[in-house]
Amino acid sequence: MCKNTPLACSLYLHHPFVTLLLKKDDLQKRSVCSCLSTATQTSANIRQHLPARMKKKLILDVDTGVDDAQAILVALADPNVEILGITCCHGNTPLDNVLKNTLRVLQAANRLDIPVHAGCDKPLLAPAAQEEWSESLDKMINQNPGEVTLVATAPLTNLAVAVQLNPKISKKLKALYIMGGNTESRGNTTTCGEFNFVADPEAAYIVLERYTCPTYIATWEFTCRNSLPWSWCDKLLAQNTPKANFVKAISLLSNKKAQSADYQNEITEGKGFNSCDTYALAAAINDKLITESQEVAVTVELEGTYTRGMMVLDYMDLLKKKHKAVIMKTVDKEKLKQMFMNSVK
Amino acid sequence: MCKNTPLACSLYLHHPFVTLLLKKDDLQKRSVCSCLSTATQTSANIRQHLPARMKKKLILDVDTGVDDAQAILVALADPNVEILGITCCHGNTPLDNVLKNTLRVLQAANRLDIPVHAGCDKPLLAPAAQEEWSESLDKMINQNPGEVTLVATAPLTNLAVAVQLNPKISKKLKALYIMGGNTESRGNTTTCGEFNFVADPEAAYIVLERYTCPTYIATWEFTCRNSLPWSWCDKLLAQNTPKANFVKAISLLSNKKAQSADYQNEITEGKGFNSCDTYALAAAINDKLITESQEVAVTVELEGTYTRGMMVLDYMDLLKKKHKAVIMKTVDKEKLKQMFMNSVK
Amino acid sequence: MCKNTPLACSLYLHHPFVTLLLKKDDLQKRSVCSCLSTATQTSANIRQHLPARMKKKLILDVDTGVDDAQAILVALADPNVEILGITCCHGNTPLDNVLKNTLRVLQAANRLDIPVHAGCDKPLLAPAAQEEWSESLDKMINQNPGEVTLVATAPLTNLAVAVQLNPKISKKLKALYIMGGNTESRGNTTTCGEFNFVADPEAAYIVLERYTCPTYIATWEFTCRNSLPWSWCDKLLAQNTPKANFVKAISLLSNKKAQSADYQNEITEGKGFNSCDTYALAAAINDKLITESQEVAVTVELEGTYTRGMMVLDYMDLLKKKHKAVIMKTVDKEKLKQMFMNSVK
Amino acid sequence: MCKNTPLACSLYLHHPFVTLLLKKDDLQKRSVCSCLSTATQTSANIRQHLPARMKKKLILDVDTGVDDAQAILVALADPNVEILGITCCHGNTPLDNVLKNTLRVLQAANRLDIPVHAGCDKPLLAPAAQEEWSESLDKMINQNPGEVTLVATAPLTNLAVAVQLNPKISKKLKALYIMGGNTESRGNTTTCGEFNFVADPEAAYIVLERYTCPTYIATWEFTCRNSLPWSWCDKLLAQNTPKANFVKAISLLSNKKAQSADYQNEITEGKGFNSCDTYALAAAINDKLITESQEVAVTVELEGTYTRGMMVLDYMDLLKKKHKAVIMKTVDKEKLKQMFMNSVK
Repeated sequence: MCKNTPLACSLYLHHPFVTLLLKKDDLQKRSVCSCLSTATQTSANIRQHLPARMKKKLILDVDTGVDDAQAILVALADPNVEILGITCCHGNTPLDNVLKNTLRVLQAANRLDIPVHAGCDKPLLAPAAQEEWSESLDKMINQNPGEVTLVATAPLTNLAVAVQLNPKISKKLKALYIMGGNTESRGNTTTCGEFNFVADPEAAYIVLERYTCPTYIATWEFTCRNSLPWSWCDKLLAQNTPKANFVKAISLLSNKKAQSADYQNEITEGKGFNSCDTYALAAAINDKLITESQEVAVTVELEGTYTRGMMVLDYMDLLKKKHKAVIMKTVDKEKLKQMFMNSVK
Repeated sequence: MCKNTPLACSLYLHHPFVTLLLKKDDLQKRSVCSCLSTATQTSANIRQHLPARMKKKLILDVDTGVDDAQAILVALADPNVEILGITCCHGNTPLDNVLKNTLRVLQAANRLDIPVHAGCDKPLLAPAAQEEWSESLDKMINQNPGEVTLVATAPLTNLAVAVQLNPKISKKLKALYIMGGNTESRGNTTTCGEFNFVADPEAAYIVLERYTCPTYIATWEFTCRNSLPWSWCDKLLAQNTPKANFVKAISLLSNKKAQSADYQNEITEGKGFNSCDTYALAAAINDKLITESQEVAVTVELEGTYTRGMMVLDYMDLLKKKHKAVIMKTVDKEKLKQMFMNSVK
Repeated sequence: MCKNTPLACSLYLHHPFVTLLLKKDDLQKRSVCSCLSTATQTSANIRQHLPARMKKKLILDVDTGVDDAQAILVALADPNVEILGITCCHGNTPLDNVLKNTLRVLQAANRLDIPVHAGCDKPLLAPAAQEEWSESLDKMINQNPGEVTLVATAPLTNLAVAVQLNPKISKKLKALYIMGGNTESRGNTTTCGEFNFVADPEAAYIVLERYTCPTYIATWEFTCRNSLPWSWCDKLLAQNTPKANFVKAISLLSNKKAQSADYQNEITEGKGFNSCDTYALAAAINDKLITESQEVAVTVELEGTYTRGMMVLDYMDLLKKKHKAVIMKTVDKEKLKQMFMNSVK
Repeated sequence: MCKNTPLACSLYLHHPFVTLLLKKDDLQKRSVCSCLSTATQTSANIRQHLPARMKKKLILDVDTGVDDAQAILVALADPNVEILGITCCHGNTPLDNVLKNTLRVLQAANRLDIPVHAGCDKPLLAPAAQEEWSESLDKMINQNPGEVTLVATAPLTNLAVAVQLNPKISKKLKALYIMGGNTESRGNTTTCGEFNFVADPEAAYIVLERYTCPTYIATWEFTCRNSLPWSWCDKLLAQNTPKANFVKAISLLSNKKAQSADYQNEITEGKGFNSCDTYALAAAINDKLITESQEVAVTVELEGTYTRGMMVLDYMDLLKKKHKAVIMKTVDKEKLKQMFMNSVK
């Protein structure tokens, strides 16, 4: 039944370009979910370059917009990656749309066998109660102790709730990769705040305090500075494969806006194609991607008129935190390009 | 084995008089827990005045110090109350001690058949990860939809995590009774903050925002204004029953301090014996206890140099909240005295 | 020329009932000011019951609405009070209107000889710069060291700037009387904030920290609890003297609103006629008026989502402040009534 | 009498290396001040390259430590600059020491004819009252409307009080140059805060909001990135002139610490000799010094656990402020070196 979900090229674009093209009732969530829960992970089209036990086990926590979609495709393209499941979080678009978008990406890649789970539909301190929460994140990590790399490209609500429910998952993770936060008070949503952190500052705080596994962060400024040339992006989208056409269709509006004068002047420091979520994902599956990084203790400002949600870097070690995060600085752009190319083949 | 736990009269006093008399290794938590998990609820000494199905089903969430202990005894004394379980939370004393104290109270009442569960040992935004969390609160509520009255006399961390894990429990509760918060910025812990709310402001905020069931709050000022005469307290403790002697022993230090000049001058408005947690519990089991109350929307200040954790009452309806809490104003003191007397028989 | 200023009965009502009935160009500020600066203090209609040197020297800092007007009349009616000058502050209405209102009150009392000075037209941290500031407050205090009682019934901006300009004035004052702040987090403007303090929280903070002279505060709750019966107010306004008629005219709208069901339900605890500014003024000129009060260190919350501007009372002495303020609790209502009656004779 | 002030080479080093070598009673403030107030500005050693009326009129607001001292010397060395006066502010060291240090720099340059004024000895919201405040800043600006360039290298308390006292000075200034604030949340005092702004955040806020004259800011990161090579600094200090020897003596300790591994690792991004105050001063007297800059609206975070006092840059124009500040980016290092060299001749 899932296979019959219409493949409209209407994925929601990343903020601040979120456009809701789909009607609410398009989403047959109930059937989708039952479909997902019975789906097996033995899809025939997984190229098994490595024995299953040696593959990199990944859980993706997403709020699927354009760049999450690109990141998912990059993950699906790697034969040595096993995606245990995808948990969805409020963020770019309401949770229902995140679920739908995620399913469409999997459908475009013919990988609807991968479990998709609904997570939190509201930030931790939202005024209204959320509807439901899946415990799947906890279960997947517990069933694979020490083996799972968690990649979070959404607000960190799901991860915060998971670690409150079961504090031990932090030690059971192999590593955590986050797209979010900023290093130089350069806001893209509020004056000093990055979208994923501002969308749930308490969640970001809890995650940075309690996930004591190795933690790698792709910040907003990092992704801007390491963006790819638009000319190369055009080449990627012109590959004329089904997946390239899918990415082209969903990127149309966001790329146009990202190249507008307004956006260039106001929001980014680096010009170019910036699929920000993909940096976190790509770093998680390729240890050689990041060519320069810095270890520093980080936390999140929870108060502040202009700075609530801003990531704080403790260069002077005033906070005396033992756990440091690895802040990505530069990527091997050729490797990144190759991963993108593979993702649309 | 639980029955062999030594009954030392060394319950920890409520803040700000917490005294740790017991050594850490006194607590044989492992055996205690296995004991609890195998305990049955068919203890012979439950007086069944009402058919089981008509009893008031209660869950107590506690950080057992002296007044929690008194509240538990009051609940145990009511033949028409069924305690589904007791969940423990950090607060007056570390979680391990809360567990031990709770077991001692149950032992004194010969009711070790009641399940005791470990909850959160740290506030939501604590810098370090907590050790574990029990899902028992969620389960007990789910197994008795619409029937459970939840009484919280500790910091609200357990309740906040429970509603994040399963937002639906808010609708499945019959009612929520809370001891905590203040109505007139009268602090007993910080300049403007009450202990239970200050101990985890984010948890208190989440609980007041998301538990949309009928919510009744026994605030600090309310309990002070409705305290009982010390002369009557002396009479209560002189009943010379095993339970009265137990309460006398555990109250010794706290009552002495509560009658000191310092405490009278600085902390309370009302003079007298103030078993603050018992007000919330007694109101939960006797609908006639509260003789005056006020419905008003409430929330919690999360920022503020002096006011973090202070309860905020929106008398002018500036916040436009639909859900109002019932703020207790006055109690029927004779009824309260009778409940205390029954609890030591 | 000042004498020709038209006497319209259009004084602005105290918040939250501010109504601007006058057009901007009604105010001939320039001529008014030159008038004031040349006015002498030897008006013939000052009844000299005491030798001039023994009179109580008062400076009033006001944001003249209805209750400031009533307070000014009470001060003018006392033969043993010498008003050195009136400084005006933004607050109930823009500074220009405050100046005009103040002049009308003086005109109604035939006391345009009293100097009126323009103070701050914006709070300390207002985004835009204010236009001008008069140094008259500083000068009047310096010229009468140890003799001046300062009565502030407006936001405390003028006082804060004055003490920054000349820190020594704090020690040169005989006493400071303030109408403002609250004692029980009962807001009349924001959820937890009183108007005068919320209008400039930093100014209130600076004043409570730096004016180390004896400081007396008439808080919002105090004035509500000590309000006078409406029936008595009717009697006051029916005296049929020119001043009573003036007060009646300017009070018409505010009294009507203050007696509405909405206002009674939402804003006050005490029912009745509450001329809040008059409490501070009357206490300043009659040492016997206050029958009960409490000394406690106070400060102001500067952060907080709901509590910015709230007055904080340090009952537990956690802040270790040496300087305590005198918080008024109850008044001698008969004395207060007599002062009101005298003021309209 | 001033000339007899002993010339100890004991100037206080800039934070965080403040070392108080002098005893309190070394400072004969009273005599110093009377000396200053009678000093004339007709010193014979002013090289008059330009007619007096064409000179650049400067007021310096300082908290003289090593880098303020270097900045003052650079200003004194320029024949086309007229220093109207130097106002002193709390900061690196208590106000008394700032006064003394400033006088020593002037003595070393044989320019004790320049008036030195005491300003604020506490930040705006300091708990205790300050002792006194000079109105000289206001007077100097008013006497030279449209002609004065104000250079502030200290916490901005003096400037904030001056604009509260007389809001019009903002429009009477030709330009304002500030050393302070940061652009990328890189703290040198708190986790995210620069010293001068953190030392009085409210003052910094008021100055950035109300000084609507052209405003140029030399931020912490800017000065770090544009520091000069240590080898060149050695050359400067080896000039063997009286002034070079004076600078060498006062810089000894600070340069040693600034070259330590700790300092290099923790605090700066740019390695090298960073006389941060001198950048603001040099830019004020030489329009060609700054080779790259950016106009952006700025303000200051007043709340925040980690970010209080952090400068906020509104790149996205979310605050809709009309007034933009000029943020310095790069300097012409050769010009800067030449100015330093001239300053020790």
